[in-house]
Amino acid sequence: MGMTWGKNIKLSIFGESHGKAIGIIVDGLPPGMELNLDLISEELNRRAPGKNDFSTTRKESEKFEILSGFFAGRTTGTPLAAVIYNENQQSREYEKIRHLIRPGHADYPGYVKYQGFNDYRGGGHFSGRLTAPLVFAGACAKQLLLEENIWVASYIKSIGEIEERDIDLAYPDSELLLHVRKKEFPAIFAETAEMMKGAIQKAREDQDSVGGVVETVVGNVPPGIGDPFFNSMESSLAQIIFSIPGVKGLEFGSGFDVTRMKGSQANDCYYLKKNEIKTRSNHNGGILGGITNGMPLVFRTAFKPTASIGKAQSTVNLEKMSETVLQIKGRHDPCIVPRAVPVVEAAAALVLLDLIIDNR
Amino acid sequence: MGMTWGKNIKLSIFGESHGKAIGIIVDGLPPGMELNLDLISEELNRRAPGKNDFSTTRKESEKFEILSGFFAGRTTGTPLAAVIYNENQQSREYEKIRHLIRPGHADYPGYVKYQGFNDYRGGGHFSGRLTAPLVFAGACAKQLLLEENIWVASYIKSIGEIEERDIDLAYPDSELLLHVRKKEFPAIFAETAEMMKGAIQKAREDQDSVGGVVETVVGNVPPGIGDPFFNSMESSLAQIIFSIPGVKGLEFGSGFDVTRMKGSQANDCYYLKKNEIKTRSNHNGGILGGITNGMPLVFRTAFKPTASIGKAQSTVNLEKMSETVLQIKGRHDPCIVPRAVPVVEAAAALVLLDLIIDNR
Amino acid sequence: MGMTWGKNIKLSIFGESHGKAIGIIVDGLPPGMELNLDLISEELNRRAPGKNDFSTTRKESEKFEILSGFFAGRTTGTPLAAVIYNENQQSREYEKIRHLIRPGHADYPGYVKYQGFNDYRGGGHFSGRLTAPLVFAGACAKQLLLEENIWVASYIKSIGEIEERDIDLAYPDSELLLHVRKKEFPAIFAETAEMMKGAIQKAREDQDSVGGVVETVVGNVPPGIGDPFFNSMESSLAQIIFSIPGVKGLEFGSGFDVTRMKGSQANDCYYLKKNEIKTRSNHNGGILGGITNGMPLVFRTAFKPTASIGKAQSTVNLEKMSETVLQIKGRHDPCIVPRAVPVVEAAAALVLLDLIIDNR
Amino acid sequence: MGMTWGKNIKLSIFGESHGKAIGIIVDGLPPGMELNLDLISEELNRRAPGKNDFSTTRKESEKFEILSGFFAGRTTGTPLAAVIYNENQQSREYEKIRHLIRPGHADYPGYVKYQGFNDYRGGGHFSGRLTAPLVFAGACAKQLLLEENIWVASYIKSIGEIEERDIDLAYPDSELLLHVRKKEFPAIFAETAEMMKGAIQKAREDQDSVGGVVETVVGNVPPGIGDPFFNSMESSLAQIIFSIPGVKGLEFGSGFDVTRMKGSQANDCYYLKKNEIKTRSNHNGGILGGITNGMPLVFRTAFKPTASIGKAQSTVNLEKMSETVLQIKGRHDPCIVPRAVPVVEAAAALVLLDLIIDNR
Repeated sequence: MGMTWGKNIKLSIFGESHGKAIGIIVDGLPPGMELNLDLISEELNRRAPGKNDFSTTRKESEKFEILSGFFAGRTTGTPLAAVIYNENQQSREYEKIRHLIRPGHADYPGYVKYQGFNDYRGGGHFSGRLTAPLVFAGACAKQLLLEENIWVASYIKSIGEIEERDIDLAYPDSELLLHVRKKEFPAIFAETAEMMKGAIQKAREDQDSVGGVVETVVGNVPPGIGDPFFNSMESSLAQIIFSIPGVKGLEFGSGFDVTRMKGSQANDCYYLKKNEIKTRSNHNGGILGGITNGMPLVFRTAFKPTASIGKAQSTVNLEKMSETVLQIKGRHDPCIVPRAVPVVEAAAALVLLDLIIDNR
Repeated sequence: MGMTWGKNIKLSIFGESHGKAIGIIVDGLPPGMELNLDLISEELNRRAPGKNDFSTTRKESEKFEILSGFFAGRTTGTPLAAVIYNENQQSREYEKIRHLIRPGHADYPGYVKYQGFNDYRGGGHFSGRLTAPLVFAGACAKQLLLEENIWVASYIKSIGEIEERDIDLAYPDSELLLHVRKKEFPAIFAETAEMMKGAIQKAREDQDSVGGVVETVVGNVPPGIGDPFFNSMESSLAQIIFSIPGVKGLEFGSGFDVTRMKGSQANDCYYLKKNEIKTRSNHNGGILGGITNGMPLVFRTAFKPTASIGKAQSTVNLEKMSETVLQIKGRHDPCIVPRAVPVVEAAAALVLLDLIIDNR
Repeated sequence: MGMTWGKNIKLSIFGESHGKAIGIIVDGLPPGMELNLDLISEELNRRAPGKNDFSTTRKESEKFEILSGFFAGRTTGTPLAAVIYNENQQSREYEKIRHLIRPGHADYPGYVKYQGFNDYRGGGHFSGRLTAPLVFAGACAKQLLLEENIWVASYIKSIGEIEERDIDLAYPDSELLLHVRKKEFPAIFAETAEMMKGAIQKAREDQDSVGGVVETVVGNVPPGIGDPFFNSMESSLAQIIFSIPGVKGLEFGSGFDVTRMKGSQANDCYYLKKNEIKTRSNHNGGILGGITNGMPLVFRTAFKPTASIGKAQSTVNLEKMSETVLQIKGRHDPCIVPRAVPVVEAAAALVLLDLIIDNR
Repeated sequence: MGMTWGKNIKLSIFGESHGKAIGIIVDGLPPGMELNLDLISEELNRRAPGKNDFSTTRKESEKFEILSGFFAGRTTGTPLAAVIYNENQQSREYEKIRHLIRPGHADYPGYVKYQGFNDYRGGGHFSGRLTAPLVFAGACAKQLLLEENIWVASYIKSIGEIEERDIDLAYPDSELLLHVRKKEFPAIFAETAEMMKGAIQKAREDQDSVGGVVETVVGNVPPGIGDPFFNSMESSLAQIIFSIPGVKGLEFGSGFDVTRMKGSQANDCYYLKKNEIKTRSNHNGGILGGITNGMPLVFRTAFKPTASIGKAQSTVNLEKMSETVLQIKGRHDPCIVPRAVPVVEAAAALVLLDLIIDNR
């Protein structure tokens, strides 16, 4: 039971990859909001499959249907429910290998937890496809945040060994960062982007996959948002970020690097900038004691390589309880990171909005 | 509002560093449990101040008093409330610098959030002291986990640049790891421990501080625990881990390193070990799709250097809204990491127990 | 924001009376359950409009579609989502009177709360139609309860002044009570049923409406279910029962009558019945200290007369802020009580199941 | 597990009647609030034992100690924790009868739920004494409500058969109602009060007890507060009201009486009063569709007779599993209703505040 989230903006997600539909209920949006449906489509398309085919512009369009909470072009203030129907699901391949638990996937723990009754096709409820509803909700949240001038930008920080050079995270260039969302491949600088694409292409050719890191910056966050302890800004972001399939690490500000600093380096010293309290550096990623300090929120999310690969892997046949070799056929996405960028953005937007409402 | 946590084991924490008392209510413990009060004391003492004075054995004893939920030597099943009284609080020093927001501390965001009314003495509600109640609750949780043969071991993985060598995290040596809790300085190997102590001693001499990483292993976790999405094992652990003051990063299994692997390396392949399904490696840290897979749970927590340092730091005087220099007097703990070890253990134990109950 | 409910069985409801669809997500059902879809349809039909046309058997069939959580004829253990599409919604009449707030309806408070943006057609989100998803979830819950031999029976206790005679609520006749669900008009005894129908018919002829009381008995409830204080059995039932549109009162056991008793009458004395502890009377309705005592759970729910009546009523035109007279055209259901019977049953089943799971 | 409550104002209650202390954590109070400690004491004293001794003014003073969240005379905004120590607990009598389950008490369900480990002395965790922390929290809530001119008044509506005459609940006389809190016996009119006291005195002489009804009116509630469905105003009030020991019924507005009305009577018709929308009658108790309509909130709470009586009662000896007769010695409070009045007021204030914050 883990499909509900939030205090002031409440989400309930449902669906399986190869079932009839996936969907979401978003409760807590203010009434009278003119939902930008085009923006929602745009966000869903950023996440849609086909992003790693750089030679082609083919993109599956993710069509959503709003079932409730939207009337005469505006939100009603009552629960907004949306579904995205699943189309063209080919399930035969999954039938064949259903007893072979795929390494790196949730097949085995899912089998144990659900006693073999869960929908195994395409990862079922564990599928990355379940992040589409999150993107839908995030698009609504972003729209509300923008009314308060708060922007959220995620981009690829690294793919495998290829790492983007560091940018100024205390005073980031918002134009540079927000421009990323317009790109086919969501990295900041063109030259690194090419190298990253190369690494992904290489993994595809090897029937293998590659992981990466997404960096996120949230600008114009007011100070004083978040709570000490269990609802700290970090705790709240972490809960939702770690619910995204494939995430294995999360760090704020200088993160793991800060452990190697001295306090005198890591402490972001205060000064007055046009009579506003600011810090010169941003090693704490805009958060102190779980509460925002008025600097940009900065965090990095580590994604493991896609579990589905074409290479042969040793595994166990659950039915026969025997060791065997699995080779997954078909076309695999060799890197989930580009498509994960809008998902992380959505998650960040939802948390920010939820905590900002809490602070009113 | 962030002081309650949990679904089946519910915690409510309260207190300020220099107030009358700090405490906790633990709701959801089973009735009839013979609480091991000595174990609780032992755990509290592992977290108590004075741990970095390796020349002396002085340790402040943390005395707790149980107010309810405990009758005739056993838990009653109703809320267990415990308080730890604050003693010898010297508040004068804090009075003097109260308008100078300490870099790296929650002073400024706390001031904004609480409009200047929060107790500023010793960090108030943001103090690391608030982790003592967590350790109390964690000691109860550990006792219950041990009944199911589940053990939790945390230890220092690194202090500043000094890093412990890697151990086998797929098939860890439980004796080696559990022995750490008996040590004055909670690191695995003596030689690295000495170097780490040296780094801390050096920071103290420099009136500075140093950060580090705590590694945690949980053994004998049954498969099938946790939920997809918002209550995933990673999400649940992350929420509580990031509520610990000073935490800036968290990674599971191979964490950020896994982003640099190929899928064929990162996927932990299955095999049969005495007819049980196991994986050969443990890059996923015992969790797939948010659910345990029967391998040891492994995660690392990044702590920033203690914010309180003796060195002069530039800051702002909130009252005068002018820039100034702050020099914090008194004796500072140059490294919070050794004392954080039992706190991380407690947090892990509480999450495990909460999710295991959920799965019954 | 009030559309989510539950701890172990979690519900999220959405929809408006005249929108595209209403629906529900039920999270927490065990995997592998063969849902009895016919039973679900049967329950939905008990609640469907047309129940007060005793001369005809016309009943709108409530068709539901399961979108997720159901695979190969069984629940998967992941969220079960179901929608019921709205058909033949005639909205023109509502357009005409949209500025006239209907007395007894939620029009005015809804207008204030949602700043005029809520869907006003047919009560929108406030419509009794929103109880259909609850009935869907309740049907699933009942199926699980029956596996533990627990039955839930609701029936009409009174319509207006017509009151059914009292039955033995300490040792109720389960056959008699469970037979009610087979009846077109859910009252226990035929003669009273006729009088009740007459009262409803009279109200219809007068273009008026009439209220009533639903009595509910739950049999074979084990002792020890529920919690002291905020999650008491009464609190938990009350929260969901008072969410049903039109409910204005709730009492357990002898309820308001018990206030006129002496303690020596009201205290249900214990005795041994085949070595089981039972009470001779059941004035406490099977609950003491918020926890079940092994006697049948008994409660009564008071429904006000349907707010929609044909008679002229004085009201206010919100747009013009002037007093006026409202006459609502069309065919009104003069009594919601018969259709509310399966809703109350569903609510009771859901609470029981949620608390029973909690107690495992 | 039922000791936490609330969304924006969060309560966690702990304690047993004869343990060291009872207490509460209140999270969510705004920072900077000058708590009126005298008012808190006054409220606690209204609930304290000794209220039915009309011949004497003996009242146990309920001393509370604030442990956190209160600094320099004001709330800090962090959790406010308060304890009330238990004094002079005589436990010997309870030892003697511990195996005899007292009829009407939670002894038996508590024994089953907690497997015999709960503190049985004086009702333990089930004791009415646990409402004192609620009164503490309610006193804080009332203070905040008064800042918005919202008042809460509860008073005795009936004791046994003695019923107070009805007052105008659409336009109640606030002075009359608020004056009740100054009285030793919280009934509106002196003549009825005398009769009620007589009924209580009679019950005492008979070694018996008597129940009653508390009526509550909340004035100046703005329209638009509450939510449809699960967090409706009725649902929210009901959850907390039914957690008060001894409550067996709750009705809003005309409650059970409204079931005997026609819609044309029950519908509260709108009119304009000084350009404000009001209703002429208040059969709906100020709530429509779960949301306040700007009329006074009105509800009645039914309390059963005190379970502790001196009369002999048949019961079962749990240890011997044999039938027996129980005669409880000592001085019993023959009517809990007068002392319950401030508890109901507190509960109402807490719900109002929680939902008002939600609506901001």
